Amino acid sequence: MTAGFDLPRWMETQLAVVEDALSAWVVSPAVPGGHVAPENLVSAMRYAVLDGGKRLRPLLVLAAYEAVHGDETASGCVGALRSACAVELIHAYSLVHDDMPCMDNDVLRRGKPTVHVQFGEAGALLAGDALQALAFELLTPLDDSVPSAVQARLCSLLARAAGSAGMAGGQAIDLASVGIRLDEAQLRTMHQLKTGALLKGSVLMGAHCATSDAAVLAALAAYGEAIGLAFQVVDDILDVTADSATLGKTAGKDADNDKPTYVSLMGLAGSQQYAKDLLARALQALNQSGLPDTAALAALASMVVNRSH
Amino acid sequence: MTAGFDLPRWMETQLAVVEDALSAWVVSPAVPGGHVAPENLVSAMRYAVLDGGKRLRPLLVLAAYEAVHGDETASGCVGALRSACAVELIHAYSLVHDDMPCMDNDVLRRGKPTVHVQFGEAGALLAGDALQALAFELLTPLDDSVPSAVQARLCSLLARAAGSAGMAGGQAIDLASVGIRLDEAQLRTMHQLKTGALLKGSVLMGAHCATSDAAVLAALAAYGEAIGLAFQVVDDILDVTADSATLGKTAGKDADNDKPTYVSLMGLAGSQQYAKDLLARALQALNQSGLPDTAALAALASMVVNRSH
Repeated sequence: MTAGFDLPRWMETQLAVVEDALSAWVVSPAVPGGHVAPENLVSAMRYAVLDGGKRLRPLLVLAAYEAVHGDETASGCVGALRSACAVELIHAYSLVHDDMPCMDNDVLRRGKPTVHVQFGEAGALLAGDALQALAFELLTPLDDSVPSAVQARLCSLLARAAGSAGMAGGQAIDLASVGIRLDEAQLRTMHQLKTGALLKGSVLMGAHCATSDAAVLAALAAYGEAIGLAFQVVDDILDVTADSATLGKTAGKDADNDKPTYVSLMGLAGSQQYAKDLLARALQALNQSGLPDTAALAALASMVVNRSH
Repeated sequence: MTAGFDLPRWMETQLAVVEDALSAWVVSPAVPGGHVAPENLVSAMRYAVLDGGKRLRPLLVLAAYEAVHGDETASGCVGALRSACAVELIHAYSLVHDDMPCMDNDVLRRGKPTVHVQFGEAGALLAGDALQALAFELLTPLDDSVPSAVQARLCSLLARAAGSAGMAGGQAIDLASVGIRLDEAQLRTMHQLKTGALLKGSVLMGAHCATSDAAVLAALAAYGEAIGLAFQVVDDILDVTADSATLGKTAGKDADNDKPTYVSLMGLAGSQQYAKDLLARALQALNQSGLPDTAALAALASMVVNRSH
């Protein structure tokens, strides 16, 4: 399925467009008859979003759009590109808030001081809040470049992926589970919400820009769920096998904080096998989608499982 | 314009519907094939939203809808009722985050311990984040009860009212201006963003559920701007004239924190006159709207200026 597909080249092309779009859109937004955002806030928002991160979620949006639409034109589709940036803004805001002293109290992220270290806690709090709002601003352009039915569907998917039955809900379970031994089902639920919901949401947002075919969407949802879970399993593995320099963040934090992880639950070897099984499940879902070309999605799934940071 | 209009009775009817809707919707949301939100998070969200607050923003949504639509049926319009709840969720989340130790460090709100006192700082942070997402979930129901073009427009208005060129931007200016003497134009800009944007947004969201007439929307925008500013002027007045028990929050905080206020800028009498001028401006805008019955909007504007808490 991925034979002959040049993932690095594809990523380079997509990432250039995504980075340019993020840089262009994370600014004082134009509000008709309104005001512009203050510089201190915009600086913190840009710091949180630009020049860092793997951009996995935007890549999933664009790969899903291309798989459904049938050619490599995602970055030329306004809805897909806006979705790609919107999911990254949600991800970025969650990191800003997650790093704050009252949460994980992390001072290092992507090799740089975290936002609250650089801009103060209040600045980080507001930057995160404004990034979440900006994600929905991006999905609802004031011109007619994205059909309103698509805008509504994208907002619906993103809100639910980010909210209390999605990412924020997963973080709340995480918060409540420090020092508690979760079983595998509970751990899976936590991660399906905390990380999986937005990864799956990214895939579905990209797909929804090009189709409303229920069978295709169901197959891509299954793909998204599998890689969402795989992502977290690999995260837990890397937390014990990689060093801080490679990760770009503090390694060993989860074990230190007595947080439940896949490694603590099923051991290192068991976790590595589980990640491989989830990759197989993701690839099987792509086969079942009936889509002719899912090479980018397949390659991204492999990348998620085989990454070193 | 307000002759014969029974505001208390109108408010009682509307508030009963809004309270019921908030209580019904601030729960573990139903996500097709997905999970429910964890109880600890939902408890903090409900604590932040229910049984408190003047519900001014929801009332503005419903009054604007009725003024445009021409009869008292707003609470029966799904889009208007969802908008009413969504703006209140944004307001509630902003209070939760604003009360946190890294911001205003307030321990009392509406006569109750603030959310971070009750649920911890991390719990308050996540509850605020989830409330913002839930606002957009409410605006994008999965059935066809709200036309998708209206959904998209409501999300667009709310995101911009809440974001970096709206409420969050105003808070950032506020944060950067402690101990600095702002002139009137700077103070007005801060409040137009911090408080005004969401009040104006509430009016426009209600109106957009029933019309896209540019002249009507422009008049209602002018009304929303005037009462938005009046609201903050009166807030500053009450901060020095009312006691904590009446306010339900700590009085005199702004002066203690050396925050710029209208009272510090134009004195108490000057501020009171300015509030009256803004009320006149709001009522004039309603006259210019050409709408036959704006009694509820007019009465709400009077209430904003003449309130004692």
